[in-house]
Amino acid sequence: MSEQIVIVGFGPVAARLVDELLPAVRSGHARLRVVGQETEAAYNRVLVVDLGVGRTTADALALADSAELVAEGVDVRLGVRVKRVDRARQQVALSDGTSVHYDRLVFATGSRPVIPNLTGINPDPSSPVLPAGVTALRDLRDAEVLRQAVAGGKRVVVLGGGVLGLETALAAAEEGATVTVVHNGPHPLGRSIDRGGGAVLAAGLRRCGVRVAGNARSTGVEHNAPDGGFSALLLDDGSAIDGDLLVISCGVRPRTELAEGCGLSTGTGILVDHRLRAHHEPHIFAIGDCAEVRCPDPRCAACRNAKGPSGLVGPGWRQAEWLAGYLTLLAEGAEAEADVLPALAPEQPGVVVLKARGMNLAVAGDNAAEPWDEEALTAGAVNGRPRLQIAQWADPEHGRYVKMTTRGGVLEGLVAVGMPRTAAELVGLFERGAELPADRSLLLRLDGPDQLPGGGAADPAGTVCRCAGVSGAAIAAAATGGCSTVADVSKSTRAGTGCGGCHEDIKGLIEQHFSPALP
Amino acid sequence: MSEQIVIVGFGPVAARLVDELLPAVRSGHARLRVVGQETEAAYNRVLVVDLGVGRTTADALALADSAELVAEGVDVRLGVRVKRVDRARQQVALSDGTSVHYDRLVFATGSRPVIPNLTGINPDPSSPVLPAGVTALRDLRDAEVLRQAVAGGKRVVVLGGGVLGLETALAAAEEGATVTVVHNGPHPLGRSIDRGGGAVLAAGLRRCGVRVAGNARSTGVEHNAPDGGFSALLLDDGSAIDGDLLVISCGVRPRTELAEGCGLSTGTGILVDHRLRAHHEPHIFAIGDCAEVRCPDPRCAACRNAKGPSGLVGPGWRQAEWLAGYLTLLAEGAEAEADVLPALAPEQPGVVVLKARGMNLAVAGDNAAEPWDEEALTAGAVNGRPRLQIAQWADPEHGRYVKMTTRGGVLEGLVAVGMPRTAAELVGLFERGAELPADRSLLLRLDGPDQLPGGGAADPAGTVCRCAGVSGAAIAAAATGGCSTVADVSKSTRAGTGCGGCHEDIKGLIEQHFSPALP
Repeated sequence: MSEQIVIVGFGPVAARLVDELLPAVRSGHARLRVVGQETEAAYNRVLVVDLGVGRTTADALALADSAELVAEGVDVRLGVRVKRVDRARQQVALSDGTSVHYDRLVFATGSRPVIPNLTGINPDPSSPVLPAGVTALRDLRDAEVLRQAVAGGKRVVVLGGGVLGLETALAAAEEGATVTVVHNGPHPLGRSIDRGGGAVLAAGLRRCGVRVAGNARSTGVEHNAPDGGFSALLLDDGSAIDGDLLVISCGVRPRTELAEGCGLSTGTGILVDHRLRAHHEPHIFAIGDCAEVRCPDPRCAACRNAKGPSGLVGPGWRQAEWLAGYLTLLAEGAEAEADVLPALAPEQPGVVVLKARGMNLAVAGDNAAEPWDEEALTAGAVNGRPRLQIAQWADPEHGRYVKMTTRGGVLEGLVAVGMPRTAAELVGLFERGAELPADRSLLLRLDGPDQLPGGGAADPAGTVCRCAGVSGAAIAAAATGGCSTVADVSKSTRAGTGCGGCHEDIKGLIEQHFSPALP
Repeated sequence: MSEQIVIVGFGPVAARLVDELLPAVRSGHARLRVVGQETEAAYNRVLVVDLGVGRTTADALALADSAELVAEGVDVRLGVRVKRVDRARQQVALSDGTSVHYDRLVFATGSRPVIPNLTGINPDPSSPVLPAGVTALRDLRDAEVLRQAVAGGKRVVVLGGGVLGLETALAAAEEGATVTVVHNGPHPLGRSIDRGGGAVLAAGLRRCGVRVAGNARSTGVEHNAPDGGFSALLLDDGSAIDGDLLVISCGVRPRTELAEGCGLSTGTGILVDHRLRAHHEPHIFAIGDCAEVRCPDPRCAACRNAKGPSGLVGPGWRQAEWLAGYLTLLAEGAEAEADVLPALAPEQPGVVVLKARGMNLAVAGDNAAEPWDEEALTAGAVNGRPRLQIAQWADPEHGRYVKMTTRGGVLEGLVAVGMPRTAAELVGLFERGAELPADRSLLLRLDGPDQLPGGGAADPAGTVCRCAGVSGAAIAAAATGGCSTVADVSKSTRAGTGCGGCHEDIKGLIEQHFSPALP
């Protein structure tokens, strides 16, 4: 037997699924068809910012090679949109007028940028046509718009103080643009960071040459540029922030309209169970940014506190990998085995990392409580469960800040600004659920003036690339095996193919391997 | 010629003045008379608490030996009160019916405890008669009252959260009493410490077994003990704190009534100029707790921000030493030399130090501003003067807290709780006005788990005994010279004869001298 698998969408997560299904295609158990709306095969969307500031090339962003896949027997349809899914007939109608049958259909439609409701911008969510000089920095064409602004030393206004907005602002400022970040709330990263960290972050952004306009509510855009394009962002206090390019970075929203159109249940994303199956529909699956894992069983404890799609590439890749295994078993007719395949482990709470020249930040978990806030610290301390405890180092003059929120000595939240090694160590402790040393101030020493560059207490078993889940030991082994560039290591281990935040760490590990041992 | 010098009061500061004037007495230039109200010669009042908890003896507290002084030719009158000063005749009328002439009169009348206005206590400030079971812990008899309560494991209520109240509470609790500190404001040391330090201090007191009742306004005392003595302190919310002994520790007030009675100008204390002379009265001087240095010249910049009497023994001793030199020159007829004697240097801002088993605290300067309090931090930053900056380490779980308030890298204020070595280093940096290392977190390492006991970065030139102004090097030299106990060192260098807070440090220096060098 041979099953027809159709994948809707061809982003990074779909590319990973295709990759993992290739053995089943080669063995003849599965036939695979992937339908992508863009004319390019999958590329690394997270690095569109880097492309936009001229730090990387479109080639380096590619995550799939259509020609190679076609040679493997995969039916790749690019520049084609799925118009409709007919669940009764198990058919998909395409924008080129053809229809294709599926035994298993996988939604990997991803997400689209949230376009805020501003006068002068068409906010139709299904087809957001942005005026000239306004971009959401999502695809390769958007990158080109940013590249021209940065190369011309233009004024860039970034709307949104989330991690992607800040990365865009820092990179553009570093490459020569005049950048203003406009955000609401008292400080950037409002939803992720505490007050102290936010204050040090905002000061750090300013030190990096980024103007920061906080507590700003934008109401519209002005189009007075000579070409009729964007000229200013208008605020509700009557003021305006002039600029040549507006980058909208207000988060993303899962693309669910196709799934809704065929009657599937959706919440924030397409609702799937722990086997990534759409509710009450054994032939349809969803993974990545468009999928929301929340099973139909109302008693499921794991789903009670489930959050919506993470918006991160790592969890999507782990879903793709798991689903490939599951679909392969189904295609092989091993339904019994598929039924007992352990479900995907729940993702750990997200860690937000921001790295730029002169700026390093890591934020995770619940970090809002302050050291003297008895009410917040004692909340949840019942039945002998220890209360929250906070250790905090604040040195805003030098752009340094650390907060460790622990319960029973184990991190439940962290903030680290301007202390890269402390940040890396804390993130590792957070992910492992390991106990902190009793003297918390020991962690500050990692960023002391006496630490060797490239040295430090990094645990080789610790994860270096969190997107692809690759350890420092695996990267070191790749270097031993001959990989001498980040691209080599990425090809060999997948490390560094996600958000790119670990590229410097990979470089450090390669250098460590090729350097003579320290005397 | 031979001048008659009369000293009113025979406390630690008067004793020092007597000591320093002995050469002039021996050479016949001065005749010296000292009039003390108590029947004992001068003793160390700061250590009355230690005597009260049985940690020292009355003999060890003695700071003067009447018999020796009499043998030197000093006229010592004990148990005698000065009733009146007749400035026109330069005579002092004593309670024994005699009158004595003076060429120079020195007020060293000290201060008396502030007795709050509570129902059930006679608050007459000139003769505070306290009922049974209530003490202000000021003299040797008060110490005996406390000693009986502590030895009997009684309940001691300390009213007042100042440093003396806390020392009393900690010592009494450590020696077996059940102790409650009652204070107003949100935390103890309210006027000296910031919010974070206060919170960690209060938790530390509780950890040391001291109950702390904050934000408490006391209204009266209850006398229901079988002997008719104190049984409870009554609060304005209608509650009561039961106990067997009430120790009132609400600060002190200079004893100025005698000076006022003879028409001298007084503010908080007896007003004296930079040569410690009463205003417009060349024959009368004042030193120590009763004296307030504030010269009559309204344009004097030094006096504009002058504070009242410090209440500390160290500044009084420095005044006594200076005045002895001045009076000796006058007695020798060297008026021209006396006129050009450099005035006493202004005292450095006070450092509050609290040491007990399980509790170490140092507080100094202006430390109220918080790291994110832009308004407080930018205040006073004009004409290119740098703004205040704050670095702060908070780990309340482990009872540790440090705040460093700097301007241009130099400390203007500090708080250190639970970090004795960091505290000592910061106090040294504060007193020297030295610049902090750029990485402020280096200071935390002094209390890290890897520091050798007795080791550390202590500067030998740094002051160990702040009361008597004795350096570590001088103490080490005394140890080299054969001093093997704190009492020996005190006798040889005067180190440790004041507040006693440096006794452990002196012990450490002696041990260091007598220990073999570390391998």
